[in-house]
Amino acid sequence: MTPIGLAVIGAGYWGPNLVRNAMATPELRLEWLCDLDEARARAVLGRYTTVRPTASYERVLEDPAVAAVAVATPARTHFELVRAALDAGKHVLVEKPLTPTLAEGAKLVALAEERGRVLMLDHTFCYTPVVERIRELIRSGEVGDVQFVDSVRINLGLVQQDVDVLWDLAPHDLSILDYVLPPGVVPVAVAAHASDPIGAGRPCLAYLTLWLSSGAIAHVHVNWLSPTKIRTTVIGGSRRTIVWDDVNPAQRLAVYDRGVDLSAAGEDERHAALISYRTGDVVVPALPEREALRGVMGEFAAAIREGRAPRTDGRSGLRVLALLEAAQESIRSDGRRIDLGGYTR
Amino acid sequence: MTPIGLAVIGAGYWGPNLVRNAMATPELRLEWLCDLDEARARAVLGRYTTVRPTASYERVLEDPAVAAVAVATPARTHFELVRAALDAGKHVLVEKPLTPTLAEGAKLVALAEERGRVLMLDHTFCYTPVVERIRELIRSGEVGDVQFVDSVRINLGLVQQDVDVLWDLAPHDLSILDYVLPPGVVPVAVAAHASDPIGAGRPCLAYLTLWLSSGAIAHVHVNWLSPTKIRTTVIGGSRRTIVWDDVNPAQRLAVYDRGVDLSAAGEDERHAALISYRTGDVVVPALPEREALRGVMGEFAAAIREGRAPRTDGRSGLRVLALLEAAQESIRSDGRRIDLGGYTR
Amino acid sequence: MTPIGLAVIGAGYWGPNLVRNAMATPELRLEWLCDLDEARARAVLGRYTTVRPTASYERVLEDPAVAAVAVATPARTHFELVRAALDAGKHVLVEKPLTPTLAEGAKLVALAEERGRVLMLDHTFCYTPVVERIRELIRSGEVGDVQFVDSVRINLGLVQQDVDVLWDLAPHDLSILDYVLPPGVVPVAVAAHASDPIGAGRPCLAYLTLWLSSGAIAHVHVNWLSPTKIRTTVIGGSRRTIVWDDVNPAQRLAVYDRGVDLSAAGEDERHAALISYRTGDVVVPALPEREALRGVMGEFAAAIREGRAPRTDGRSGLRVLALLEAAQESIRSDGRRIDLGGYTR
Amino acid sequence: MTPIGLAVIGAGYWGPNLVRNAMATPELRLEWLCDLDEARARAVLGRYTTVRPTASYERVLEDPAVAAVAVATPARTHFELVRAALDAGKHVLVEKPLTPTLAEGAKLVALAEERGRVLMLDHTFCYTPVVERIRELIRSGEVGDVQFVDSVRINLGLVQQDVDVLWDLAPHDLSILDYVLPPGVVPVAVAAHASDPIGAGRPCLAYLTLWLSSGAIAHVHVNWLSPTKIRTTVIGGSRRTIVWDDVNPAQRLAVYDRGVDLSAAGEDERHAALISYRTGDVVVPALPEREALRGVMGEFAAAIREGRAPRTDGRSGLRVLALLEAAQESIRSDGRRIDLGGYTR
Repeated sequence: MTPIGLAVIGAGYWGPNLVRNAMATPELRLEWLCDLDEARARAVLGRYTTVRPTASYERVLEDPAVAAVAVATPARTHFELVRAALDAGKHVLVEKPLTPTLAEGAKLVALAEERGRVLMLDHTFCYTPVVERIRELIRSGEVGDVQFVDSVRINLGLVQQDVDVLWDLAPHDLSILDYVLPPGVVPVAVAAHASDPIGAGRPCLAYLTLWLSSGAIAHVHVNWLSPTKIRTTVIGGSRRTIVWDDVNPAQRLAVYDRGVDLSAAGEDERHAALISYRTGDVVVPALPEREALRGVMGEFAAAIREGRAPRTDGRSGLRVLALLEAAQESIRSDGRRIDLGGYTR
Repeated sequence: MTPIGLAVIGAGYWGPNLVRNAMATPELRLEWLCDLDEARARAVLGRYTTVRPTASYERVLEDPAVAAVAVATPARTHFELVRAALDAGKHVLVEKPLTPTLAEGAKLVALAEERGRVLMLDHTFCYTPVVERIRELIRSGEVGDVQFVDSVRINLGLVQQDVDVLWDLAPHDLSILDYVLPPGVVPVAVAAHASDPIGAGRPCLAYLTLWLSSGAIAHVHVNWLSPTKIRTTVIGGSRRTIVWDDVNPAQRLAVYDRGVDLSAAGEDERHAALISYRTGDVVVPALPEREALRGVMGEFAAAIREGRAPRTDGRSGLRVLALLEAAQESIRSDGRRIDLGGYTR
Repeated sequence: MTPIGLAVIGAGYWGPNLVRNAMATPELRLEWLCDLDEARARAVLGRYTTVRPTASYERVLEDPAVAAVAVATPARTHFELVRAALDAGKHVLVEKPLTPTLAEGAKLVALAEERGRVLMLDHTFCYTPVVERIRELIRSGEVGDVQFVDSVRINLGLVQQDVDVLWDLAPHDLSILDYVLPPGVVPVAVAAHASDPIGAGRPCLAYLTLWLSSGAIAHVHVNWLSPTKIRTTVIGGSRRTIVWDDVNPAQRLAVYDRGVDLSAAGEDERHAALISYRTGDVVVPALPEREALRGVMGEFAAAIREGRAPRTDGRSGLRVLALLEAAQESIRSDGRRIDLGGYTR
Repeated sequence: MTPIGLAVIGAGYWGPNLVRNAMATPELRLEWLCDLDEARARAVLGRYTTVRPTASYERVLEDPAVAAVAVATPARTHFELVRAALDAGKHVLVEKPLTPTLAEGAKLVALAEERGRVLMLDHTFCYTPVVERIRELIRSGEVGDVQFVDSVRINLGLVQQDVDVLWDLAPHDLSILDYVLPPGVVPVAVAAHASDPIGAGRPCLAYLTLWLSSGAIAHVHVNWLSPTKIRTTVIGGSRRTIVWDDVNPAQRLAVYDRGVDLSAAGEDERHAALISYRTGDVVVPALPEREALRGVMGEFAAAIREGRAPRTDGRSGLRVLALLEAAQESIRSDGRRIDLGGYTR
């Protein structure tokens, strides 16, 4: 089978990773690396490459050898770039967040459907072995009911020019949540607080509380100012609790058979002596080590080939946008609870 | 000097620790261990003791050899027990929270002042070497302005009968905050969310956001349902950031000279390129290993002897109660921001 | 049943722990704490005790209420103290090492047998839940053949007056090994190197290599000069590998189903391509938290009561002494391999 | 300046890393990747390269555009490949160990000197920021006298076909030691024990003890069978102790101001009470994150350009070989101490 011709758009922070992984994916054929600064694209490609750098997005879109583009430019440029690509009949892989507003994102999703083109979000974490396993553990019932989720993603992060910490980091947690929660469990409301203690002009730390349709709450802490890097997600279940510590490669995932049990009993006495503790073993599953972006590229190629929606399609991007917009509104109104409307799975 | 005669009230979870530390404090003379269940008091004291067990609080209060009592009973009993002790002219050390309501607490503080007796809160953590050092680091200016505080206190905790997780665990974080924040920086509002995902009849996990008078926010996560124990407080400052990891005795405290700096510049361009990163060394200060409760007992004895307010006096207890009540009100109203009234330092 | 009357001898570093645990053991009745420095014994007992301090060992041995003694004095005094106790008809629990020489130790073991008295070694670690579990894992076959043992016990240790690091720390590792190795697997030779880099007058760090009868080797590193505390034992097996990290209470024991396999094959090609890797799960067994010395006291009382040899009897002490003496001889002769004679299980 | 033409020889485990780093080094121009299996070389280079794959070493050596080769083939092939390259007038960078015997290595070093060509060892760790810093800390006197070195390098390693664990892993520790020890401090003797508990046909774990000219000892543990990865080196000094934990990127290097001090005093009493303990702070220096192989490539190019010996020249390779041969001899003779002859710095 002929590989699918691809162009990567954007040679900044993330673009080089797309380039490297596209080059390692047999189903793709990387044709161009496009950046407004052609010298930068050239430098990323290096001295030994047959891939062409260019500053002209038009040239890329006109190239019939290019069937798909992967967009890794600042979020504010996504709408125009993705629209142009879809209009030119290209399939599109785009960095998160899809667009700076839900309204724009919805237009792109509609356009992609109209044009019959794949629109895929690079929700990279959904392609890691650890998140796959977490999804399995939840869907198979091994975890039991999800009782709470607590996610911390903090480190000394790049204070960005065009996004705040909410839009920069929370999409990871929200897209992971979207991917692993069991069918039928969706966020129904959100409250958020944020702070810009260094005067950067935009929030550098934020806390989100999500109410889920099951009654449980999920909480997310994102922070650009922490000198230590913490990436820990705890998913408490009625049968098992999952602890995912992403900065500990020796024990990235641990499944605890420890918890608090509540025995069923007559209503009157139920709060009396019927709580008990389980102190069971912990299992650290063996996980393959592979680069998630390789999986992203593979899924993008497969979705194009098979004419189907990818695992992290445009609609998953809209669900994330809906949460981000509601969180932003909550931040503006002192942490008020904002109910989510439609964009739930 | 004759030691101060002391009775410990309550032989449950915490009482034995008070007994052991009182016995090791030369300035005190432990006379009684009092519990409604005298057999329990007897068992705690063991077979080799000269300390007397009793089930009669009256007997303790009537004993002229007893100048002070240390109360470690359920919170709902504090008001009556402390009031009786003060009325009997005893000095009182009491477990947190002082009382289940701010109004009751305020009455006790007023009574102690009226009677000229010491009323001290057992805010144990304020007597640990690590919290002392954190206070010094902040007060000396070494940390710079406090930009954010994030505190996590989670583990598989005892689901209690008469208090929820907020009233059980958050007093630790709130009393520490009360102790280490620089003069003039006080909480002005609070929002909180809580959840009871196991149907225990009371919240088992809670999140608090505190707005400080300086504009910074402090966040507290308390949770009884986590199979892993995490006790980490990060205090981000303009010059240094403190990471206190209380479950890592080899490195309980770390002071990071890493952060994000914002250079002063003309307004227009301030958000442009003026953010820079410091990647400095980390210092792990040598800290003495000593039991905090020993310090509590020493301070209690010294305050009595010197006729002065102890370091964690009744008023510090009221400030914690004010925060707990406001948090509770916020939980009841979907996380609404609740402004604090008077009880700030 | 009347409790067994006990005296603790030695109020130094370890004695207070024996006192505390004896007091908590219902089968024992602590009568005396004996130390040449009676004031020290008095201080250890505290102001609230009914236990008597004394400086007179004679008085202890003459007391008919005393049926057993627990000796926690410097090693050089063990021989005389234990002999006197056995001669007085007392049962004896003694700190490791049993005596400074194998010859003396053998005399005491013979004497105890002659007198029909219990002589027990305080090989404390053999009474920890983790060592019990390791023994089970090995004896049940779950680990498979023991392929190697590597034990590291280093920290900033007290440079002792009468013992070097070999005699101070290695008895722990050697007694654990003695306890957990499967029946029929015994050390047959030892080589050791040691060093006194600070001019302390005795070795402050040492390395031991033990050849086991199975062909495997065990290695022990003991060191008083390390600023970090490491207490890790790895036991590699043909089916599972055990990692015991004693300074990590959250994960003291981990059982790895990861390793290198060698498939059976024709001799010629066996070293070719038949090595494969297993990357299985890791299991962290739930272990109870209990103080090992409580188990030591219980076993001592039970052995006396039942007239049987305790789990860590005098002969286990001799096996450890035989290894220590051989290691010492090896150190003196530049690390030469020293074959062990008789004292193997 | 024209870049130096380079060919990488060997497209196995390490070759791709040399390729990647050579391509990123402006002073070099990668011309060929040579492997007996040309398809493998082609696969390593990928579909987008201008670098040529070849199976012909002759063709590489005949190419006048090639001024230097980097050899990453099995150790048993090094002698012939390096000799041919030097004979062809090429500069050579070679993987460790230089050759399987000291005699062969010495011939290559002599040949390189005769031909006036650079012969450099890829002692990669010597080009890491952490080893550079350790060297500085020792040479500047900050550590004081080196009192002991303990190095552990264990993990589930590839059981190799042509080298045992000693020759595979110990060169890292020995070359690092060679690099960081202060001038005048050299190994003078070595003893070693090894074991092949899985029947792999060659040692899979080994322990080395090195006696240094200063009187201190250094110890190395290498092991292919450990399910956990440990890479820790402790360098104990009279003033500071260094702990390098290479699997902990958040705290790779820690400098402890903790230790045991021995005060000078009259001979008689020196072992009495003159030992004291320091419990000082720990400093975790900020270290840049950069790939060591980049530094290797840069040094190789600079040495060629400047006509000077590289930092890890052929003689450093010989010193490592001398230690490996002596260790091997010791293993064969039950751990006997083997004195080193000439090849010391």
